[in-house]
Amino acid sequence: MKVYLDNNATTPLHPEVKKEMAAAMEMFGNPSSMHAWGREARANVEDARHKVARFIGADDQEVVFVGSGSEANNTVLSLFVCASSQCIPGTSMRNAIITTKIEHPCVLETSECLMHRGVNVEYLDVDQYGRIDLDQLKGMLGDHVGLVSVMMANNEIGTLQDIRAITEMVHESGAFMHTDAVQAVGKIPVDVRDLGVDFLTMSAHKIYGPKGVGALFVKKGIPYCPLIRGGHQEKGRRAGTENTLGILGMARAVEMRALEMHEEEARLLVMKEVLRKGIEERIDDIYFNGHPTESLAGTLNVSFPGAEGESILLYLDLEGIAVSTGSACASGSLDPSHVLLATGSDAERAHGSIRISMGRDTTMEEVEYLLDVLPGIISRIRNMSTAYIKGGAHAASR
Amino acid sequence: MKVYLDNNATTPLHPEVKKEMAAAMEMFGNPSSMHAWGREARANVEDARHKVARFIGADDQEVVFVGSGSEANNTVLSLFVCASSQCIPGTSMRNAIITTKIEHPCVLETSECLMHRGVNVEYLDVDQYGRIDLDQLKGMLGDHVGLVSVMMANNEIGTLQDIRAITEMVHESGAFMHTDAVQAVGKIPVDVRDLGVDFLTMSAHKIYGPKGVGALFVKKGIPYCPLIRGGHQEKGRRAGTENTLGILGMARAVEMRALEMHEEEARLLVMKEVLRKGIEERIDDIYFNGHPTESLAGTLNVSFPGAEGESILLYLDLEGIAVSTGSACASGSLDPSHVLLATGSDAERAHGSIRISMGRDTTMEEVEYLLDVLPGIISRIRNMSTAYIKGGAHAASR
Repeated sequence: MKVYLDNNATTPLHPEVKKEMAAAMEMFGNPSSMHAWGREARANVEDARHKVARFIGADDQEVVFVGSGSEANNTVLSLFVCASSQCIPGTSMRNAIITTKIEHPCVLETSECLMHRGVNVEYLDVDQYGRIDLDQLKGMLGDHVGLVSVMMANNEIGTLQDIRAITEMVHESGAFMHTDAVQAVGKIPVDVRDLGVDFLTMSAHKIYGPKGVGALFVKKGIPYCPLIRGGHQEKGRRAGTENTLGILGMARAVEMRALEMHEEEARLLVMKEVLRKGIEERIDDIYFNGHPTESLAGTLNVSFPGAEGESILLYLDLEGIAVSTGSACASGSLDPSHVLLATGSDAERAHGSIRISMGRDTTMEEVEYLLDVLPGIISRIRNMSTAYIKGGAHAASR
Repeated sequence: MKVYLDNNATTPLHPEVKKEMAAAMEMFGNPSSMHAWGREARANVEDARHKVARFIGADDQEVVFVGSGSEANNTVLSLFVCASSQCIPGTSMRNAIITTKIEHPCVLETSECLMHRGVNVEYLDVDQYGRIDLDQLKGMLGDHVGLVSVMMANNEIGTLQDIRAITEMVHESGAFMHTDAVQAVGKIPVDVRDLGVDFLTMSAHKIYGPKGVGALFVKKGIPYCPLIRGGHQEKGRRAGTENTLGILGMARAVEMRALEMHEEEARLLVMKEVLRKGIEERIDDIYFNGHPTESLAGTLNVSFPGAEGESILLYLDLEGIAVSTGSACASGSLDPSHVLLATGSDAERAHGSIRISMGRDTTMEEVEYLLDVLPGIISRIRNMSTAYIKGGAHAASR
């Protein structure tokens, strides 16, 4: 049996997306060209933009197609380097950014780079469930803060933030608000007007669309400076010939999300409960990471002290099951998850965690297969680990 | 009859690329994931990297996949902003860039932005054929110059530069050398070792591959800082989940180029001669732009004083023929081509130019159809233009 439970890392193309992209392979014009081939491509790209905009409650011209969620996040943060120079006059007084300790590496590493360029970056803590504290945010905001970036749904633990409340507070202080909603859009309802945000990042490949394409919502009238310059594409906001095939695939993916996500959400929640109870019943000394309710329906992050997450992943892989240890983007790194450490998890519990992320293709049969296989794997690994004492130090830390 | 003669703007997917991408739609793993799905994707991406590297004579690890040629060019130039900060120690003394007046807008606009950030940018002139002057370059080089960026083949007029000689001179001065080879790779032989360059930009969609993917050659050991940060993808040189479908399509495109480009080049040269002679014989008062021999085989840029390029384009469009006025990336702009102005063309001749760019699907029948249709269009437009006097001021400026 082949069971893919790593849908937060990436997802298969929706059958409708495959169809759309296969058909679009015949359309090859450059949307910037004035002739018939170009006009056809332009019309298709603008139609796709309308679909994506409608899905998040934005106006068409507020959607900028980019190459990835990482590019969108980098664009928003790098904007700030420009804001300190001549590109965006009048904003240079606010040279601080606030973000959280549990953002995606593309936000954290860009922030660090910005610090070398004279931008002050401050980090919000999170509680044991991965939620930020609005009071802490209030204390950090001020005339010096130009931008706040808080992710909507965490990729590793699934915890959701109250972006609407955060945005309100941020706007009161006069700063701009960005949310990385890569894991949220297409899984939970996202409406940019309701949230009030100035910038919002989304990606196609997390929601059954193609890799290599994403979108950045930029509210009308907000200062902006492109990360990739030259060429008038995307109204001068992102140079480079439009990835027409990817853009059309992304639009089809969000169309299908609009039809499927609500029912799917309910189905995933049921399966997550089965998974949670099943693990609790069959395996001792475990710890669920993330918020018990304010969380993505398909994401379950669980720690098995005494068992390395990487070993669990590899044993599951032998059984045909795909899960992940934290973020795929951070894999290859031996550091414990920065997200789990931020929630107060000790390094050992962080090392012993896996992320199970279900999606539209996940079945109850697959969940039960995982529940059949997992207990044996955990006890095998724990038995090999001489350091592990059941209900020992780890139990105390719970 | 539908005749696409705008292959420098973009090209249709090669039938083999379509096949490759259709098959690859089933492979959806994230190359960063450790499980079977991820390993399959990783193996395919690395195989693609090997094919692209081999095509330009590079080592696999010297190829960084990006989202477009524009992104690659922005990356190399922006590197320089970092080189002035703490990211790349020891290189901050050289805070000047030299480039040419005929680069793609993504180089020119990024350069302008860099000037706001404390980088000095100097521009090389070109002669009437669009070639730079090595003596001028020699005079401009010095201890203050960190990077020289000269495009290999111009997108508008097809003129080729002697990148090998330029690189040798640049390296003697201790600067790094970048070439935007988007219009060259896959059309003429390009070997990075033979050229000696440190950075080279390529794009898939100009050579029958998909839009939304390109590659940057970065020579081993050269200082580097990513434009898009976070995530360890591409060995930390470009964050964002790999565009697996696009990357596989690009690799298949270069494989096909290796098989087809030499024969095609010869065929295109013959057709360009037919086109050139046909235009000369049938239309008075014309001017061919670009170098007569050191030029892309498929590109012919011609000025028809007294006829607006845009009008010619639209009339040809009505006859089912696609050409361009200069670069697709600059279209929508009413400014005359910066490339033609740099070659000494006056604004009117620049306004009256069209670019005919042939490709692998272009047939002699199509060339003859263009030759049948074009003379009538030019005389119709010229007759409508009261300002046009045949052999008048324009003839003098030739």
